[in-house]
Amino acid sequence: MLSQQSLAWGQTKSCIRELMEFGMRRKAEIGADKVFDYSIGNPSIPAPACVKETIAELLEGDSIALHGYTPAAGLPPLRKLISEKLNERYALDTTAANIYVTCGAAAGLAIALKAMLLSGEEVITSAPFFPEYRVFTEACGGKLVALAPDKSFMIDTDALKAALNEKTKAIIVNSPNNPSGAILSEDNLKAVAEILREHKAKTGRTVYIISDEPYRELVYDGTKVHCALEYYDDTVFCYSFSKTLSLPGERIGYLAVSSKMTDAKDMINAIAGAGRSLGYVNAPSMFQQVILRCFDAVSDVSKYRENRDLLCSIMDELGYEYIMPQGAFYLFVKALEPDAKSFSEQAKKHELLLVPSDDFGVGGYVRLAYCVSKEMIEASKPAFAALKKDYE
Amino acid sequence: MLSQQSLAWGQTKSCIRELMEFGMRRKAEIGADKVFDYSIGNPSIPAPACVKETIAELLEGDSIALHGYTPAAGLPPLRKLISEKLNERYALDTTAANIYVTCGAAAGLAIALKAMLLSGEEVITSAPFFPEYRVFTEACGGKLVALAPDKSFMIDTDALKAALNEKTKAIIVNSPNNPSGAILSEDNLKAVAEILREHKAKTGRTVYIISDEPYRELVYDGTKVHCALEYYDDTVFCYSFSKTLSLPGERIGYLAVSSKMTDAKDMINAIAGAGRSLGYVNAPSMFQQVILRCFDAVSDVSKYRENRDLLCSIMDELGYEYIMPQGAFYLFVKALEPDAKSFSEQAKKHELLLVPSDDFGVGGYVRLAYCVSKEMIEASKPAFAALKKDYE
Repeated sequence: MLSQQSLAWGQTKSCIRELMEFGMRRKAEIGADKVFDYSIGNPSIPAPACVKETIAELLEGDSIALHGYTPAAGLPPLRKLISEKLNERYALDTTAANIYVTCGAAAGLAIALKAMLLSGEEVITSAPFFPEYRVFTEACGGKLVALAPDKSFMIDTDALKAALNEKTKAIIVNSPNNPSGAILSEDNLKAVAEILREHKAKTGRTVYIISDEPYRELVYDGTKVHCALEYYDDTVFCYSFSKTLSLPGERIGYLAVSSKMTDAKDMINAIAGAGRSLGYVNAPSMFQQVILRCFDAVSDVSKYRENRDLLCSIMDELGYEYIMPQGAFYLFVKALEPDAKSFSEQAKKHELLLVPSDDFGVGGYVRLAYCVSKEMIEASKPAFAALKKDYE
Repeated sequence: MLSQQSLAWGQTKSCIRELMEFGMRRKAEIGADKVFDYSIGNPSIPAPACVKETIAELLEGDSIALHGYTPAAGLPPLRKLISEKLNERYALDTTAANIYVTCGAAAGLAIALKAMLLSGEEVITSAPFFPEYRVFTEACGGKLVALAPDKSFMIDTDALKAALNEKTKAIIVNSPNNPSGAILSEDNLKAVAEILREHKAKTGRTVYIISDEPYRELVYDGTKVHCALEYYDDTVFCYSFSKTLSLPGERIGYLAVSSKMTDAKDMINAIAGAGRSLGYVNAPSMFQQVILRCFDAVSDVSKYRENRDLLCSIMDELGYEYIMPQGAFYLFVKALEPDAKSFSEQAKKHELLLVPSDDFGVGGYVRLAYCVSKEMIEASKPAFAALKKDYE
């Protein structure tokens, strides 16, 4: 008998990936321009020129050094640079020792949870949430507890207080949020931190914040993104370069442990041990070098803003309801029937690939990844109109 | 409280990585040419020219496609190619569906074990073995059972029969072997397969073979490497391009499930689920493209053979005992005192970095990775002579 847990995860797949792979098959059948694929957050902006230039330069150097193993936690100069950039941004005093370079944010989350979770412990998150949080948590024998968000898609602090118990090990916060595009306010983050500090004072138990921020740089309307690192010492920060440098397939990101964490050194060791035990030898070596040289070369995100505005104007015109996203590249749209999965199936009939919200922990919405071409958004308007008509 | 298991793995580190990182510090202190670093299997042959050429070509194409997500199991044409090459080599009939592209062999092993292991189950391997087998097994709640090898470093079939019980889920075989360089004979593999079939006939329980073969192409003296896939249907094959294409830091390899496995489809699904739950979104996208184009461009391994012969002649001259390696790039040398760790410490005094064998499951040896420069081997001779003298 195989692991029934692994088997179930393999048979069900992530709803996002399932729809993406359906999309690939469908495009092969009827032509890529006939399918309106809003399924996956695959950046539609090319990587900044620096990436190509750097790789071309690196290829002229020593092949053995370029493609060789790196230390498990990453190249020392890269870890140093990351810590310096974090310090600059958030007035911290991390060092290279606080940084562990990962194969993207998914690996970072899986590793952080494996580092801290004991079997039977609970991880809290606020819906809507990235569905893999549940899988990563359960893979460590833990249980994900999802809170309903408050009306403005912030963390419901009363619900958080009620959910904390002796089994709670961590809370995963995600801002800007996938799938809603909401950004947690400074007040909300401060309130969450205060609740966790009170919980610790009362019970002696530390609840870690895992701050999952791959969309940190994808922000619109001048909104400032605050980070749990600023307000809460027991924070593990999880980042990926997938979105800002348009490198999602290359799997490169990092974990940072607050230098003010009570047991920061243990946490870094546990992260290293967890990474090792999950088979992560080191993050891809060439892309570690690329990040070292292209750290500040953020992709031009103005296109995403244009896409957001275009898509919102279409939704407005057709009478769809949605959450106005302040960041990331997702639009969370109210389904036209209570069952989001059924709505997503109906959308497929118009070649619209919309991810149903159920796996994100809330019912009745679909997620549209608008990191697509402007042309696709424009061309999809009649399909959205037809879909709307189906429900009239 | 953090996961004490993760913490312990992070605090102890792999003995190989620890010595490698010591070496990096030591080289910075006294100069790289003063340290005789036999610690890690970092290929010393540059990647074949095809790798550089292919990357340069890929950079001229579409950045979004190049660096974007791939399906979790890998690019369909790459999976197809891998299955065709396996069929050619071993007269099998795998298809693309049997292949799952991984971030190297370490990820492949961690994923295969997570796919099959239930808590409390046992995994057998034959010493000497790659120390991380224990970590990957224990990370899934399993227990590694190490058999002592027979005199010629084959799997001891009597010991195997005695070790099989109702908890046995798998046996990991590794040929050519790290650290001994031994290659399992066809007779030995056939005998192992027969024992497992008898066990299944008697008990109804399947014991899977996980065949870990990253050194498959690094073979000397015309020795033929046989594979468990040829003799045993319940085999999961684990490969890495690290060694043959000199790309260890890039993390690219694959798992292949025998198409004749009784529950092949379930196994592939469980592998996909396990990979997903460990945070492996996809293997690095650019290097998937590179492998697709450079599959047959094996590095020129004649240099490793020359190194082996040079190192063996030095050992012969100085009177060290060792196992003559038929493959891989490791020389397993008898320590000059019973405690291999103490011997390794003594060697450090002569700037010789030799990995003690204890973590490989046998005492009294050190492993020398001879994927180094010929010059370093030559320059290390006086150090080996002085080390010998310490014990006279």
